[in-house]
Amino acid sequence: MPQSITKRSKKSGLPPGTLIHIGERKTEKVRITVIDYDEEHLEEREVAQVEEVFPFRERPTVTWINIDGIHDVELMKTIGQHFGVHPLLLEDILNTEQRPKMDDHESYLFIILKMLYYTDTGEAREIEAEQVSLILGPNFVISFQEREGDVFNSVRDRIRNKKGRIRKVGSDYLAYALIDAIVDNYFMILEMIGEIIEDTEEELVTNPTPETLRTIHGLKRSMIFLRKSVWPLREVLSGLERLESPLIQESTDIYLRDLYDHTIQVIDTVENFRDMIAGMLDIYLSSLSNKMNEIMKVLTIIATIFIPLTYIVGIYGMNFEYMPELGWRWGYPAVWLLMGAILISMVLYFRRRRWL
Amino acid sequence: MPQSITKRSKKSGLPPGTLIHIGERKTEKVRITVIDYDEEHLEEREVAQVEEVFPFRERPTVTWINIDGIHDVELMKTIGQHFGVHPLLLEDILNTEQRPKMDDHESYLFIILKMLYYTDTGEAREIEAEQVSLILGPNFVISFQEREGDVFNSVRDRIRNKKGRIRKVGSDYLAYALIDAIVDNYFMILEMIGEIIEDTEEELVTNPTPETLRTIHGLKRSMIFLRKSVWPLREVLSGLERLESPLIQESTDIYLRDLYDHTIQVIDTVENFRDMIAGMLDIYLSSLSNKMNEIMKVLTIIATIFIPLTYIVGIYGMNFEYMPELGWRWGYPAVWLLMGAILISMVLYFRRRRWL
Amino acid sequence: MPQSITKRSKKSGLPPGTLIHIGERKTEKVRITVIDYDEEHLEEREVAQVEEVFPFRERPTVTWINIDGIHDVELMKTIGQHFGVHPLLLEDILNTEQRPKMDDHESYLFIILKMLYYTDTGEAREIEAEQVSLILGPNFVISFQEREGDVFNSVRDRIRNKKGRIRKVGSDYLAYALIDAIVDNYFMILEMIGEIIEDTEEELVTNPTPETLRTIHGLKRSMIFLRKSVWPLREVLSGLERLESPLIQESTDIYLRDLYDHTIQVIDTVENFRDMIAGMLDIYLSSLSNKMNEIMKVLTIIATIFIPLTYIVGIYGMNFEYMPELGWRWGYPAVWLLMGAILISMVLYFRRRRWL
Amino acid sequence: MPQSITKRSKKSGLPPGTLIHIGERKTEKVRITVIDYDEEHLEEREVAQVEEVFPFRERPTVTWINIDGIHDVELMKTIGQHFGVHPLLLEDILNTEQRPKMDDHESYLFIILKMLYYTDTGEAREIEAEQVSLILGPNFVISFQEREGDVFNSVRDRIRNKKGRIRKVGSDYLAYALIDAIVDNYFMILEMIGEIIEDTEEELVTNPTPETLRTIHGLKRSMIFLRKSVWPLREVLSGLERLESPLIQESTDIYLRDLYDHTIQVIDTVENFRDMIAGMLDIYLSSLSNKMNEIMKVLTIIATIFIPLTYIVGIYGMNFEYMPELGWRWGYPAVWLLMGAILISMVLYFRRRRWL
Amino acid sequence: MPQSITKRSKKSGLPPGTLIHIGERKTEKVRITVIDYDEEHLEEREVAQVEEVFPFRERPTVTWINIDGIHDVELMKTIGQHFGVHPLLLEDILNTEQRPKMDDHESYLFIILKMLYYTDTGEAREIEAEQVSLILGPNFVISFQEREGDVFNSVRDRIRNKKGRIRKVGSDYLAYALIDAIVDNYFMILEMIGEIIEDTEEELVTNPTPETLRTIHGLKRSMIFLRKSVWPLREVLSGLERLESPLIQESTDIYLRDLYDHTIQVIDTVENFRDMIAGMLDIYLSSLSNKMNEIMKVLTIIATIFIPLTYIVGIYGMNFEYMPELGWRWGYPAVWLLMGAILISMVLYFRRRRWL
Repeated sequence: MPQSITKRSKKSGLPPGTLIHIGERKTEKVRITVIDYDEEHLEEREVAQVEEVFPFRERPTVTWINIDGIHDVELMKTIGQHFGVHPLLLEDILNTEQRPKMDDHESYLFIILKMLYYTDTGEAREIEAEQVSLILGPNFVISFQEREGDVFNSVRDRIRNKKGRIRKVGSDYLAYALIDAIVDNYFMILEMIGEIIEDTEEELVTNPTPETLRTIHGLKRSMIFLRKSVWPLREVLSGLERLESPLIQESTDIYLRDLYDHTIQVIDTVENFRDMIAGMLDIYLSSLSNKMNEIMKVLTIIATIFIPLTYIVGIYGMNFEYMPELGWRWGYPAVWLLMGAILISMVLYFRRRRWL
Repeated sequence: MPQSITKRSKKSGLPPGTLIHIGERKTEKVRITVIDYDEEHLEEREVAQVEEVFPFRERPTVTWINIDGIHDVELMKTIGQHFGVHPLLLEDILNTEQRPKMDDHESYLFIILKMLYYTDTGEAREIEAEQVSLILGPNFVISFQEREGDVFNSVRDRIRNKKGRIRKVGSDYLAYALIDAIVDNYFMILEMIGEIIEDTEEELVTNPTPETLRTIHGLKRSMIFLRKSVWPLREVLSGLERLESPLIQESTDIYLRDLYDHTIQVIDTVENFRDMIAGMLDIYLSSLSNKMNEIMKVLTIIATIFIPLTYIVGIYGMNFEYMPELGWRWGYPAVWLLMGAILISMVLYFRRRRWL
Repeated sequence: MPQSITKRSKKSGLPPGTLIHIGERKTEKVRITVIDYDEEHLEEREVAQVEEVFPFRERPTVTWINIDGIHDVELMKTIGQHFGVHPLLLEDILNTEQRPKMDDHESYLFIILKMLYYTDTGEAREIEAEQVSLILGPNFVISFQEREGDVFNSVRDRIRNKKGRIRKVGSDYLAYALIDAIVDNYFMILEMIGEIIEDTEEELVTNPTPETLRTIHGLKRSMIFLRKSVWPLREVLSGLERLESPLIQESTDIYLRDLYDHTIQVIDTVENFRDMIAGMLDIYLSSLSNKMNEIMKVLTIIATIFIPLTYIVGIYGMNFEYMPELGWRWGYPAVWLLMGAILISMVLYFRRRRWL
Repeated sequence: MPQSITKRSKKSGLPPGTLIHIGERKTEKVRITVIDYDEEHLEEREVAQVEEVFPFRERPTVTWINIDGIHDVELMKTIGQHFGVHPLLLEDILNTEQRPKMDDHESYLFIILKMLYYTDTGEAREIEAEQVSLILGPNFVISFQEREGDVFNSVRDRIRNKKGRIRKVGSDYLAYALIDAIVDNYFMILEMIGEIIEDTEEELVTNPTPETLRTIHGLKRSMIFLRKSVWPLREVLSGLERLESPLIQESTDIYLRDLYDHTIQVIDTVENFRDMIAGMLDIYLSSLSNKMNEIMKVLTIIATIFIPLTYIVGIYGMNFEYMPELGWRWGYPAVWLLMGAILISMVLYFRRRRWL
Repeated sequence: MPQSITKRSKKSGLPPGTLIHIGERKTEKVRITVIDYDEEHLEEREVAQVEEVFPFRERPTVTWINIDGIHDVELMKTIGQHFGVHPLLLEDILNTEQRPKMDDHESYLFIILKMLYYTDTGEAREIEAEQVSLILGPNFVISFQEREGDVFNSVRDRIRNKKGRIRKVGSDYLAYALIDAIVDNYFMILEMIGEIIEDTEEELVTNPTPETLRTIHGLKRSMIFLRKSVWPLREVLSGLERLESPLIQESTDIYLRDLYDHTIQVIDTVENFRDMIAGMLDIYLSSLSNKMNEIMKVLTIIATIFIPLTYIVGIYGMNFEYMPELGWRWGYPAVWLLMGAILISMVLYFRRRRWL
């Protein structure tokens, strides 16, 4: 699970800026799609060679180049050279263990984000992160994804169908829309986790098992994982909002502010979930203690009642020749009476202690 | 319970500014009431159509438009257009999972708050939050509530009966009065929680049960919930106080400062309650351990006394042909004496250990 | 106990500035005393009517008006009007659940503090807080107390006996002296708590009981209570020190700095006590577990020794017709030898495990 | 132990600046020594009357006046008057419960520090603090200690033997050297605590006893105590470093920076120790639970094996007239076989559960 | 283990700037190697006398002097005098217990870092730190290591083989490359720890033993140790990045920024690991309680079933003369029936309680 660092060692010792793909090869073939639009025109196509996208850069229209699959190092170099991206940034794109961040390189902004996927394979429920890198230039946005995903489809639809403002405004709004799609996706993840929390709380009250503990522990790990993706996002967005850059138009500011509010909401929810999960662990431990008390009570009641009785019958099982009681006519019934009296007083004692 | 995120997914993938109501439909019919006043005049009425409130905007008097029920998206759009409210803000009003916040839009201030209700259905005691949005313009305040509530009634009474300064001053004081009513309501909630804490502490000392744990856990959750509503409120109020806006007159500042002090007091109390509840959990766990110790003591005393005695009587229950003791005249009484001696020494031992 | 909010609801819904006394009526009759002094003259008297104190305001001498009992709302209004105190501040004086704070109103400073009393009724030891409000004007100080207290007596004595600088300097030094008396009092409270902590630690080591837990819990609550009073005091004093106000002379600054240092010392001690008390709880819980281990050891030793022995004697208590051992001449002594051997090996086993 | 506040009450109610010695009278006779030096000359002597030191002040050489014992209030007053020290500072020197601090009084700097002593009386190991106050003037340093200590001896030696720069530079370097000696001493204390931690960890693994818990608790208390002395020291030193005062020459800055680094190192170590000690408590508690599990296993194995066997032999101890098994020729060996089978299956069961 | 302070006492009492080696003598012979290069030329050699390296300083090429072994105090002095290094810094180099830091001395930068080694001796897995000091001058870098290490080999290779930018740029980039090699090494350490965490989690779920606890505790200590090395590094790097020094060229800034990001990533991972390890302890404790519950259940089931049965057979083992049941023809089978009924009802009872 602490996957976030497992493959880094591949790179160790190489000069900075060396492009090596660190991460799983999540898709076989790199897929490059271009959407070029302004208020009137829309051109959308998939290209086979990365060089085909270069002409779009010259046009005044907004161009969105989306690259699914980042393991093709040569392709990355070609893009980097054409768009003037610093080798260190290309390295960051390839290294999928990056922390979300935003760098201002004057002629373009570089943004790294984490897209989260929730997978429930039946035996294990896990949150997986995929790195999404954005390069925002004056009239283009390049997005890099580790594999083909469906989170950006809503943005594509809005562009195609002219929904909302997106066709009327520049590349900064497009970048905003993409980040917004990612943050919206966080809410979905949180909803799912919220449901698991609810189910687990139910389970805790009715029938806590070691399995429940495992679920709680898994939730805790998920929260650690989520925090790692979400907290830096906050800095990214507050950075974008405060940024004095010609790349971001003033009219986009209110959207970024809104997005920042959403991120704060995500963080709040994550922190609340953490508190809730911590509380669940306390309850689990208490329930273990409670169960133990119940078990011990049963044992103690049984033992405390029967051990003295067994002692008494043991007495009259002794084989002494001179045991006058044994010869008494009412000896046997008297012993029964004695035992009955002991039983009743024991029961009363436990009642008083509220054990019964 | 982690309701705060449950219905958000409805919106996922839509362009920002799309108006969709997120939340429960808390009231069937949207109810719009207008109170228009200055020092001399007062006009109060309920309108059927939202358009009826527009003329009030032109008058120099203070107009308070209160809208109970926010699920009528068309109505919201009409208001938004007339009063020049940004679609993103309308979206915030409709999405009842917002965090309290204050935005300055020059021609108006936009404030989101949480009104809290405490419901005790007998089987479950819960705090529910309702979102209240305020738009403060130069001579009007529009308030949006999810359902008809009675928290603002005190403000209405003061306007009707000319109590206090409210009729003499502007819309900023009205907005203050509404926020004040909400914060005052928090104290009521805290008082109720304070009483539950007191009762639970009493219970903890006298007779802690798993039910007590459940109450403690519920209190903890309530505190998580309260924090979420109250902490951002602090920022809202300190923002309002520091705000350099022509919408807030200088004479209102002292009231906002007072309100800020109240919010700090609420936060202090919430934090103190949290500390107290954490302490209660410790006590609960200790009491479980104490109980276990008590149970084990009983078991151990009984077992430790009777097991050796049973062993002794077992010895003389053996059927060996050559057991001289069995034939002794005083064998039986001697065994009784022996057992009595063991009993006494055991009791003394437990005394010395302070178990009896 | 969470008394700090219990009576607030009385006020709910009233316009701000409405004077209502919130708190216990701690004294029957309001008592107003005036001390008017400069380096040469001293006039001290108790007045029946509040109006009698007004002439003092015109004199160049320093006037200290002390009001014990704040439940007389009319009297408060009269003072407020004469001295030009804002209704919201009067409200704060009457509402004894205020947080310590300092407000600068240009012509006067308004300070709220908490005076602490430690009450030990035998069955319960509690810290109670009383609100003290100070109004510091150019040549007067008005102090409001909930009931007659003796904490200010030392200041009175110093004025009467010309001890220290107090008679040579202005009203700001008088205000300082009063706050200093309150902070000095905190050290007394902390000393008492320190002693209880010491006693409880002793008890923890020698003989921890559920009663000890109760004491620890009580100490924890006291710390929560103290923090609430002391932390805001720090802000009050750092505010006073940094204040650019003609009301505070430069020569008083060093005294305020000294007072600030004392407050930091109080806070440090409170935080240290908190840490100590947290440690005590850990010890208590460990001692419970230790005790349990001791109990279980006793039970286990007894059971483990006697259960096998009882089994053996049970064997020879069987009534089979063909049990050759029963007829053996040395069968009975052989069983004794066997049992002795088992006993010794058990004891050796427990020795090796360090249970004996 | 919470000694830091125990004697403060002596002062309560007195005007500020009243000189009263608060603390133990650690030495009988106040001892005043003077060392006066420049690069060529060195004069060292012990004076009987404090007035003898005054002439040194006029000389251009550096004068170090060291006063062991601060309970002679008259002497303090004389010094204060001659050197122009504010009464509040004299009060701070006498009150040994001060927090480390640094005050800039333009013509002199006033510094309070804590010197730590580690005492191991065999039955209790404790850290004791002694207050050291320094007054740094243009060409003199006055140091006040509660009792004669040996920590400053190294500085004395360096002055006497012209070791290092000390004889070539001014009084600021002397003050630095004294503080450095105190901080160096902290490292000694930390080394000793480090050794105790190591020993205790060893003990925890091999044979944890309630005594171990007591040691852990003691370490925790020591850390609370150390923090109290060390954290404020950091502020003192960063204050000294940033100070724009003619009393501190620029060439001393690098030494103060170095000293600051050492203090950070001390704080780091204290915090690490705290973390380690917290971890030790967890281990202790786990080891208690582990022990309990071991005890319970032994009991359960014994009881689970012998209770059923005892039941079986009990059956054939019944005295029914018609019990055919009793008359069987192989009845007795058959019971042995049965019991052997039970024993083996039990052992196998415990093996599978890894209890044996 | 708290080695970080153990040998410091050697220095106590000496004047600051006295050169004493504090730390283990990790290598016998000090080894000095020089690499001098520019884009065209490369000279690499090992020198016997430190004086041989001085001529390199005059050349315009970049000179990297690497010194393995720092215990030769005389050598350090010679270097210090030649390169104008302040004695306090030499002291820092020799004292291997320094905290990572960066000091700007105008003509050179002084940087202290920690290189980490992970050693797994089979019986103990530990992280060891070695101090690396760098002096960065206008055209030289001097690096001090405690012993010969292989972490810098990758940098050497890049210089030799002209890989990347290193041969084209100045000494600042060389310093960056060295720090980068150290930070890259941290990722290796973290990967190894990540694997141990994974294994331990696996172990926790399948078969937790006291050994597991020891591993968790060891991990915790490693984290404390790592934090100590990594957190100050962050300040070092953010300091370097913000530094306005002619020693650092603008083109290197982006590399420092990248390095800073890596450090943040290391810190994030360390903090996540801490959270995970804390969670593992909770699981361990829960699993102890669970085990105890299992053990107690077994005991209770056995005892609760057989104790009553043993009691019954005890009854009919009594020797009363008048016990009618004993003479009954079907008495014995009836007892069996009774015992069977008890057994079945017990089993049903445990089933209902979900114990079976």
